[in-house]
Amino acid sequence: MNTLKSFASDNVSGVHPRILQAMAKANDGPAKPYGQDGATARADELLRRHFGPDIDPYFVFLGTAANVLSLSSMIRPHQAVLCADCAHIAVDECGAPERFTGAKLLTVPSRDGKVAPGDFRRFLRDIGNEHHSQPAALSITQCTEYGSLYSPDEIRALADFAHEHRMFLHMDGARLANACAALDLPLAALTAECGVDALSFGGTKNGLMFGEAVIFFEPRLAAHFRFERKQAMQLYSKMRFIAAQFSALLEDDLWLANARHANRMAALLGELVQDLPGLSITRPVQTNHVFARLPRAALTRLEADWHFYVWRDEDPAKDPEVRWMTAFDTREEDVRAFAAAVRSSLDI
Amino acid sequence: MNTLKSFASDNVSGVHPRILQAMAKANDGPAKPYGQDGATARADELLRRHFGPDIDPYFVFLGTAANVLSLSSMIRPHQAVLCADCAHIAVDECGAPERFTGAKLLTVPSRDGKVAPGDFRRFLRDIGNEHHSQPAALSITQCTEYGSLYSPDEIRALADFAHEHRMFLHMDGARLANACAALDLPLAALTAECGVDALSFGGTKNGLMFGEAVIFFEPRLAAHFRFERKQAMQLYSKMRFIAAQFSALLEDDLWLANARHANRMAALLGELVQDLPGLSITRPVQTNHVFARLPRAALTRLEADWHFYVWRDEDPAKDPEVRWMTAFDTREEDVRAFAAAVRSSLDI
Amino acid sequence: MNTLKSFASDNVSGVHPRILQAMAKANDGPAKPYGQDGATARADELLRRHFGPDIDPYFVFLGTAANVLSLSSMIRPHQAVLCADCAHIAVDECGAPERFTGAKLLTVPSRDGKVAPGDFRRFLRDIGNEHHSQPAALSITQCTEYGSLYSPDEIRALADFAHEHRMFLHMDGARLANACAALDLPLAALTAECGVDALSFGGTKNGLMFGEAVIFFEPRLAAHFRFERKQAMQLYSKMRFIAAQFSALLEDDLWLANARHANRMAALLGELVQDLPGLSITRPVQTNHVFARLPRAALTRLEADWHFYVWRDEDPAKDPEVRWMTAFDTREEDVRAFAAAVRSSLDI
Amino acid sequence: MNTLKSFASDNVSGVHPRILQAMAKANDGPAKPYGQDGATARADELLRRHFGPDIDPYFVFLGTAANVLSLSSMIRPHQAVLCADCAHIAVDECGAPERFTGAKLLTVPSRDGKVAPGDFRRFLRDIGNEHHSQPAALSITQCTEYGSLYSPDEIRALADFAHEHRMFLHMDGARLANACAALDLPLAALTAECGVDALSFGGTKNGLMFGEAVIFFEPRLAAHFRFERKQAMQLYSKMRFIAAQFSALLEDDLWLANARHANRMAALLGELVQDLPGLSITRPVQTNHVFARLPRAALTRLEADWHFYVWRDEDPAKDPEVRWMTAFDTREEDVRAFAAAVRSSLDI
Repeated sequence: MNTLKSFASDNVSGVHPRILQAMAKANDGPAKPYGQDGATARADELLRRHFGPDIDPYFVFLGTAANVLSLSSMIRPHQAVLCADCAHIAVDECGAPERFTGAKLLTVPSRDGKVAPGDFRRFLRDIGNEHHSQPAALSITQCTEYGSLYSPDEIRALADFAHEHRMFLHMDGARLANACAALDLPLAALTAECGVDALSFGGTKNGLMFGEAVIFFEPRLAAHFRFERKQAMQLYSKMRFIAAQFSALLEDDLWLANARHANRMAALLGELVQDLPGLSITRPVQTNHVFARLPRAALTRLEADWHFYVWRDEDPAKDPEVRWMTAFDTREEDVRAFAAAVRSSLDI
Repeated sequence: MNTLKSFASDNVSGVHPRILQAMAKANDGPAKPYGQDGATARADELLRRHFGPDIDPYFVFLGTAANVLSLSSMIRPHQAVLCADCAHIAVDECGAPERFTGAKLLTVPSRDGKVAPGDFRRFLRDIGNEHHSQPAALSITQCTEYGSLYSPDEIRALADFAHEHRMFLHMDGARLANACAALDLPLAALTAECGVDALSFGGTKNGLMFGEAVIFFEPRLAAHFRFERKQAMQLYSKMRFIAAQFSALLEDDLWLANARHANRMAALLGELVQDLPGLSITRPVQTNHVFARLPRAALTRLEADWHFYVWRDEDPAKDPEVRWMTAFDTREEDVRAFAAAVRSSLDI
Repeated sequence: MNTLKSFASDNVSGVHPRILQAMAKANDGPAKPYGQDGATARADELLRRHFGPDIDPYFVFLGTAANVLSLSSMIRPHQAVLCADCAHIAVDECGAPERFTGAKLLTVPSRDGKVAPGDFRRFLRDIGNEHHSQPAALSITQCTEYGSLYSPDEIRALADFAHEHRMFLHMDGARLANACAALDLPLAALTAECGVDALSFGGTKNGLMFGEAVIFFEPRLAAHFRFERKQAMQLYSKMRFIAAQFSALLEDDLWLANARHANRMAALLGELVQDLPGLSITRPVQTNHVFARLPRAALTRLEADWHFYVWRDEDPAKDPEVRWMTAFDTREEDVRAFAAAVRSSLDI
Repeated sequence: MNTLKSFASDNVSGVHPRILQAMAKANDGPAKPYGQDGATARADELLRRHFGPDIDPYFVFLGTAANVLSLSSMIRPHQAVLCADCAHIAVDECGAPERFTGAKLLTVPSRDGKVAPGDFRRFLRDIGNEHHSQPAALSITQCTEYGSLYSPDEIRALADFAHEHRMFLHMDGARLANACAALDLPLAALTAECGVDALSFGGTKNGLMFGEAVIFFEPRLAAHFRFERKQAMQLYSKMRFIAAQFSALLEDDLWLANARHANRMAALLGELVQDLPGLSITRPVQTNHVFARLPRAALTRLEADWHFYVWRDEDPAKDPEVRWMTAFDTREEDVRAFAAAVRSSLDI
């Protein structure tokens, strides 16, 4: 057993055993390639059960691709995507959206990762002016990069704003499962029922080996998707092996159990460290993220044994902010051991 | 067990059992993401053992990406890639090379998929002329899209030609294993030792679930690769699961056993059908491809039960040409059953 | 007076005096930028008079931009443009179409620059197949790169073919004026009335200092043009100076007089050299191009004094083919002097 | 004479008479195309006299192209350009830099258009991290979009910062002449002598009809420029007509006289309105820009007769900010008339 002591991200995790079993079971001789197989049809059916009968779902390899291809279906190169300045598409994809779409991202500051229609109003003035990239899509992340949550009403307000100004609403749902678990809502309640037009539905961070789904609620957006996916180097020949994973995730609500566990572990970690002197929790702990500031010396000690990311450290005079994440396979004993290590690091 | 009766492609196959086992074994708790893990280091080491100590290897999800990223490391947008007009990069990637690199592909007719330096001489006249895309890379496929083979000398001649004119040589080795098996040569003998600068080394068609490697023999080409891979939506977070597959493939020469089997099955199929009246084998059967022409009526009957591709059918007055492929998991009994079906289809 | 002795291209010419006068006259104090001025409105009106009341015309700086932006309005990156392999867009634009659109060009051999629907039928098979770039536009050049001409019926047949298969028809009309002059037809007769969807209407080669027009006959194609033009770095702030040139060109049929003169000069050159021993005219002389083969030694002598392009020279054992072009300002005395020089060069 | 009453931009102006004369004079028969002519050699020589003997100068049609091509020579798609959030490249080019280069722009707030090394320090942390676009170029505007000025020391500090972190420094000098005039410094003193690597040297806003120069001080950057310019649709066939304009601008310091006049007119306008009750000058008037806030009702009255841009108007409760620009051909009587109109508009 690997002994990496990590709260770095939900992508340091392995694969849920039931997912692995499903992959092995899918290895049953030849099958038509590129998604024309029965396993893909079965997974599509399960996605429709969860997200609604009229969706158009497609599998890709990874989250960046799900985001870029969702956006690419919404915009042309002279147009722009509106989003938070901390959005994964804006800071963590090495410019993949710009390169693949040729378009611009217009960012605004967020509140713990969340944005609202008013944040984007200033871009409306540029509509119709040929000197400026034209707003055509609005992208939000649920749960956000800071683990915070949009309520259904907040999403609906963003969708209404987008549609009113002839934009589409994209949701980066790399951790949508964690949001549903936290809000105790089904998948459709935060997407189809709120006016989302296209969703990046995450699998990898929730127990899959690999694979994400792009789900279109607005069918017009899917018109060219199969070709775009191929040109984006995301058309998987042995598609059944993504499909089988998704089926296993969606059957018997494994997706929800995994997300609930991850959220619970973060809540536990938050509780265990929140009152430690010298440490301050910096964002509400709502899903599987814990953000905290702690003294530089403590950080150094803690990093000797544990693997995690320093999120912000721009001012040498200020405590750095760290991010600790939990996952479907985080063990309670590791959370307790880590909390104890945090406590020790703060003892000077 | 799936009962698809298919000789369509080596990507209708499943996954070799030893590969699946290796994937399960790699699922051993948390690991550092993005290739900083031990499994990736191990796979890199094995690649170096096969291809040479100075290579720079990187994993990506699929073959189109391996090709596009190899080329992207060699050219700038105002430059061009020279290749055969039947090359996968030219006809089967939905324009991914053009979109990702911004550059042009300059194609020439081939002989059963093979090209030689003389084919490209006419583009040399354009070097230095700002009106024309500048030749900067030459791409060949080994074995070719028609299953034919370059000898080491032929590859060396292409590399010399490329280097003499300040171009790089790329090899699309989606089926390099089949070429090595057919020529009874190690992997380095057709690549490192022939002056190849970058290689797309295929895994998926040779028994993996997913995963290909980009291997740089010219280290300058790797300077920006990590960033390009991320921007190309090919940076896999749980990298160990590609790495573990490659390690299993390269250990104990599973790659070679798989390729030899596939080639043997194609040879058998070729032998069984070559003398059938009305059918003609159209290309030398050297690896795991069989190309044949057969009457339209026979084709229709055969397609009722079996899945394969019609490769060329441009003239209604002429028999169409079909492609039949074998793979690591093709069973001899299925080859014999298929050959019998071909024979029946020709009986009128 | 410049004394360059050149039959290299119609772009070595200067500017027609009436065009220069019109530019000077347009320099009458401040004017609204970016085409919101009166001169642009006037030029648009004249274009409508010549091409039809429903066109949507836009000015750009140069021919490559007119072509690329016309095509960009017709296709998405996963699609393809069908054209002759000698088309300017395919060989003389350094990959600008690929870079700006992200799409692929699919080329076919031509007959003296001309293509017909049958040439493109083989690409129809790929429609709907996600592995292949999808045909979405067909581009022809009138007159062609070899000076040959499409009849209205031939253009209509290409338009019908394109529309039948949900493609658009683009015409590169860098020398449309020469075609109209040769066929004695008005501008609309070769464009609007033949089903052309978008036209690159050339000005620079017909006596302007700079400036070309993109003319949409299919209004849907213009939906995003203003933004695309800006993003393509083709939105001219002092637009009136292109507009004034076009107005001068279109008024009193200066465009036609210029083109007729150029054609006459080429015809004269053709007549003067066609019977010279050792020289052969290789293409019908229909507009302002003369293509000929002449012995290598003669070529060398001729090049010592005169400037022109060797068009093809692929076989050392064969006479090279040269291109000689005339323009609106070619003087009859220079044609006669050049013909005499050709004759001398052939005397051994 | 056109009677547009405009202080909208220096691009509503016409062309300086000496420039027009030079263009007419350049129309002297055939000349080699694409910059191989004598006029281009002469202009290059004059640019070298002003900017230094080792520069590599190239002409393009317009300012957006000069910027995009300068940047394109400095970066690869996975890299980023650092700049002010009000930079022309970031807000006024409809995403042309992103589309042509595939790269990202990383912006920071400015002080009246100016930035300093400290503004960009936060991006340094991302260097080497494959998830983030890699900083490779820093772009500043001299004079800035707000008419403010960098001192030579400030530019040198930015160049040192850029070079220290392996970035290049680009200067958008669309109005460099105005900066030189204001600071009473020669062109090289704000560019070559301060470590600028590539400059967009503006002509159109300083009295030309069309044409800008890209000037490389770092010769490595020019390696691919001729090809990039062609692919960017900026290679002008009749190049002499841009070259002749630049020669006329640089001879006898017409560039300086034009810029001084424009600056003087802005200074005059600033003086005439600065004490008007209800109006406030919002930025230092240093070149040919005047920024002011005035009551909404006054603005409405003023716009009835005069053409200019509202620069910022985000808060209905706050006076909008307007931009008034002067140019080489602004007449003192018009400045006085406009100042009187402003005064009237404020009288309620």
